[in-house]
Amino acid sequence: MRDLSPLDKKPLEGLRVIDLTRVLSGPFCTMMLGDMGAEVIKVETERGDATREQGTLRDGFSWYYASFNRNKKSIVLDLRCEEGRSVLAKLIASADVLVDNFRPGVLAQMGFDKERLREINPRLVTANVNGFGSCGPYVDRPAFDFIAQAMSGLMSVNGYDQGEPLRSAQPITDLVAGLYLAFGITAALRARDINGHGQHVEAVMVNGAISMMAYLASEYFVTGKLPERTGNDHPLVAPYGLFRASDGEIAIAPSNDVILRRFLSAIGIEHLMDDPCYDTNEKRFARRSELHELIDTRIASGTQESWIARLNTAGVPCGRVQALDEVFADPQVLAQEMTIDVEHPGHGLVRMLGFPLKLHGTPCQIRLPAPELGEHTDEVLASVGLTTDEISALKERRVAGAVPMNCGPVNPSAVIAGPVSVQDR
Amino acid sequence: MRDLSPLDKKPLEGLRVIDLTRVLSGPFCTMMLGDMGAEVIKVETERGDATREQGTLRDGFSWYYASFNRNKKSIVLDLRCEEGRSVLAKLIASADVLVDNFRPGVLAQMGFDKERLREINPRLVTANVNGFGSCGPYVDRPAFDFIAQAMSGLMSVNGYDQGEPLRSAQPITDLVAGLYLAFGITAALRARDINGHGQHVEAVMVNGAISMMAYLASEYFVTGKLPERTGNDHPLVAPYGLFRASDGEIAIAPSNDVILRRFLSAIGIEHLMDDPCYDTNEKRFARRSELHELIDTRIASGTQESWIARLNTAGVPCGRVQALDEVFADPQVLAQEMTIDVEHPGHGLVRMLGFPLKLHGTPCQIRLPAPELGEHTDEVLASVGLTTDEISALKERRVAGAVPMNCGPVNPSAVIAGPVSVQDR
Repeated sequence: MRDLSPLDKKPLEGLRVIDLTRVLSGPFCTMMLGDMGAEVIKVETERGDATREQGTLRDGFSWYYASFNRNKKSIVLDLRCEEGRSVLAKLIASADVLVDNFRPGVLAQMGFDKERLREINPRLVTANVNGFGSCGPYVDRPAFDFIAQAMSGLMSVNGYDQGEPLRSAQPITDLVAGLYLAFGITAALRARDINGHGQHVEAVMVNGAISMMAYLASEYFVTGKLPERTGNDHPLVAPYGLFRASDGEIAIAPSNDVILRRFLSAIGIEHLMDDPCYDTNEKRFARRSELHELIDTRIASGTQESWIARLNTAGVPCGRVQALDEVFADPQVLAQEMTIDVEHPGHGLVRMLGFPLKLHGTPCQIRLPAPELGEHTDEVLASVGLTTDEISALKERRVAGAVPMNCGPVNPSAVIAGPVSVQDR
Repeated sequence: MRDLSPLDKKPLEGLRVIDLTRVLSGPFCTMMLGDMGAEVIKVETERGDATREQGTLRDGFSWYYASFNRNKKSIVLDLRCEEGRSVLAKLIASADVLVDNFRPGVLAQMGFDKERLREINPRLVTANVNGFGSCGPYVDRPAFDFIAQAMSGLMSVNGYDQGEPLRSAQPITDLVAGLYLAFGITAALRARDINGHGQHVEAVMVNGAISMMAYLASEYFVTGKLPERTGNDHPLVAPYGLFRASDGEIAIAPSNDVILRRFLSAIGIEHLMDDPCYDTNEKRFARRSELHELIDTRIASGTQESWIARLNTAGVPCGRVQALDEVFADPQVLAQEMTIDVEHPGHGLVRMLGFPLKLHGTPCQIRLPAPELGEHTDEVLASVGLTTDEISALKERRVAGAVPMNCGPVNPSAVIAGPVSVQDR
């Protein structure tokens, strides 16, 4: 376990990924492959990934696009025509991984079924992220994060007792599926190292979302009882939740009896641990509102900052509920480099999220800012043997292209932020 | 891309993982490594992982534990004594990966700092999942899913406009960090294949949670404006959300103008697309409640099932908000084998979640049910060269052990379900 130096080869260095994905789940996956050193070639239509026009643009540039497409190259290729598809075949022949987030079967309809892909490149790892999976009755349904949240049970447990099921504001099913796919691709590459052959890897939004149900699922399986919606209260443990300091709320989660004793001791009511009304979790749970009131009375005597310092010293997990301005000013978040500013030639510095995963030997790095649409068309086509003349001819016929960004969205007022379908072609 | 057969070696087959993790984030990670073929050796205390006593037990067995510890072996080893730690050193020498979810630095305090680990096994990949990261002011703070949700900004966007910030009921920060770590370990193994050396990999709960903010973060960076809490409404797009059919709600997410036209056409109000009150997203958003009422009136005329069939045929992403009983009876979820029943000798069939990630050539499989506490102590210690006599001696001194499950929790009424700290030793 010598520390690898950043000069050492990154985990996916030297591998080429052909990336047919759009919007969110797929681009999140291929971004992580790029962060790990792969050469990611994003194949875009003449109009470009929809996210190039989403979110607030600055200097004609979408920070949403920028943040999910760093460490990628962009080529423009018209896959609706045979000529474009034959260029894609050349790219596939040169690649290690092919990723798409079309609905299952769409790639085959485009002429790239399993047999053809095997013929072109027997060592290829193919990967697809989709909504419902490639077998089963819903295989042709369009998917979307909100729908996957609804159907997976995620929403059924979020929210309040008397209220409606509630979505998570984060596009969690897209992102979790993208993360599963990055893991699956890396594992399949390792299987290829052993077996010599590529294989197909599939991450499914609803499946990934279901896997997040964790002990809520195992508890349902063993008891047959549906979990309830309990807001910020824990369904089975008390005390737990948000408590009111003199200047705002604190999240406190005393996770077992040892920590609970530390907590009650720190706020001066340790005697409750031996009070016959509160000496088991069952009793505390039954008297949750009285207990939370007792705690609130104590917590109200100090500020957030003073309690957070004291409770952390006592070993009690706690923290502020932070809005994004507080998150990105938090000294810990800064120390973890969870925001980075990337120079985008022509667009200045773009701020984006950093690398959540820390590989100490071969750390993730920005090697390339998110590309202009078609910025690497010439370079990439040359790499698979096309001559300058051939490339020019493809461009003239608009099969390939390098479209300057100022040919982008015509009507900036039509620009909307937020997710769009990962599935719809 | 020949289809690998299930007889082909799995991605992590032949690799040994020493697993010092407890409860959730770490065990979730190592479970995935086991699902991918690694030999995972879970090192437990004499009392066992806390989850052995959590959740509802059946026949003395926790389905929560079972579902996060499949495909693992269990040995009991007392790491508080020098003799136990010297056995651990032997295990580490025999391993490819060492995973813990102690707070950063705890493993070093136990005598296994970076230098010692390098000395024992230069090819070792070490991995740690923690709450806040191994550098920064909060490095020593205890962590917990709820706290990571609060501090990362996740809670700040969940819930309603007039209400409090709201947690996700799923232990999302534990699971996302565990998934990042499984990806990072697999990548580090591939880097080792190239470079010949192990390295340290770290997944951080708060970082992982922040990464789930996705375009909410990029939009904040570019505008400086904090995202609002909008319940089930989309913060920027209308129509979107839950609509009321005659027998219940449907989630509908028309994700762009093309799909929106299909949707409005399917419910007979396509003319709105050309109505000067509704012909842009901005106008629709400004009149969201009127628009949602118009849609509700239409949707109320049919059942959930009829609308879901019609809208899916029209290519509009939609679905039911399913509770867990509906999720696990859903024919698609069954087709995807998202529940599996595993025979646990002595405990009968245990139902658990299936494999969300599909590797078509080398599919994840159950090779081992979750282990009894210390079930594999003898086998594993023999594999690192300890003789039967040496093993017996260790057991006599209670340095190693094989504790029958009926020595488990004494007071079943004290058993609580739900997460406990991943951090606290």
